[in-house]
Amino acid sequence: MADFTLRATTTLSYDETVATVRDLLDDAGFGVLTEIDIKATLKKKLDVDVAPQIILGACRPQLAHVALLAEPAIAALLPCNVVVRSLEEGGTVVEAIDPDVMMSVAGEGAAADDLRTVATDARERLAKALAQLPGTTTEGDN
Amino acid sequence: MADFTLRATTTLSYDETVATVRDLLDDAGFGVLTEIDIKATLKKKLDVDVAPQIILGACRPQLAHVALLAEPAIAALLPCNVVVRSLEEGGTVVEAIDPDVMMSVAGEGAAADDLRTVATDARERLAKALAQLPGTTTEGDN
Repeated sequence: MADFTLRATTTLSYDETVATVRDLLDDAGFGVLTEIDIKATLKKKLDVDVAPQIILGACRPQLAHVALLAEPAIAALLPCNVVVRSLEEGGTVVEAIDPDVMMSVAGEGAAADDLRTVATDARERLAKALAQLPGTTTEGDN
Repeated sequence: MADFTLRATTTLSYDETVATVRDLLDDAGFGVLTEIDIKATLKKKLDVDVAPQIILGACRPQLAHVALLAEPAIAALLPCNVVVRSLEEGGTVVEAIDPDVMMSVAGEGAAADDLRTVATDARERLAKALAQLPGTTTEGDN
């Protein structure tokens, strides 16, 4: 497991997982601002086949605003990516960038306290959303 | 300056810079897969006013493919964000996430060598692109 993500594995199909993750992010107060269908993109650009997977760029505007006021450069770390990927062995994995890692990248400047507050809020919301996926095992939400 | 970004400041207007950055990314072999107009989004969602700024999600499919083969979780760190932001004091800043930082987040697993190769290539392309902005001072490309 990558330790820069919050991760959950579900027995749901890929399509069901994508739909469920959208609903859970909405419930958690995140809008999905961007989407990249990795499988479709790599097929189109390189004619290679990879597992079905999508990057959903999730953003809670209230948190983004506080973070940007604290450190404008934080824009380069937004939105918060939530990846859904079909597993060859069956089931589907959902992997969100860990907001703690995003904010730790931003270092220990004057804005560190504000960024930490944002990261904690975002992390709790994402971890709770992942924990609500049916048929899951979760990691990284301790 | 945030040390997780490659940064250049240009005397071009915001709109000119956005257009120029698109061209430079294209020349450098990056497609822009996502766009978030931060100013418009925060105005719409929160009715707050921030400086004109946009996140361009840049991706070089060849590099993304190698990185994903090495470490599937790397998807949570893609695409490579390039932010254009209007400065209150005049001029425009372009700030790209430093691929070295992205890859260092991914740690020192078996895939580290492949990821380092990808990061080095992406970093050189982005640094070269930023250096071609007219009227710039650049940082972080040393």
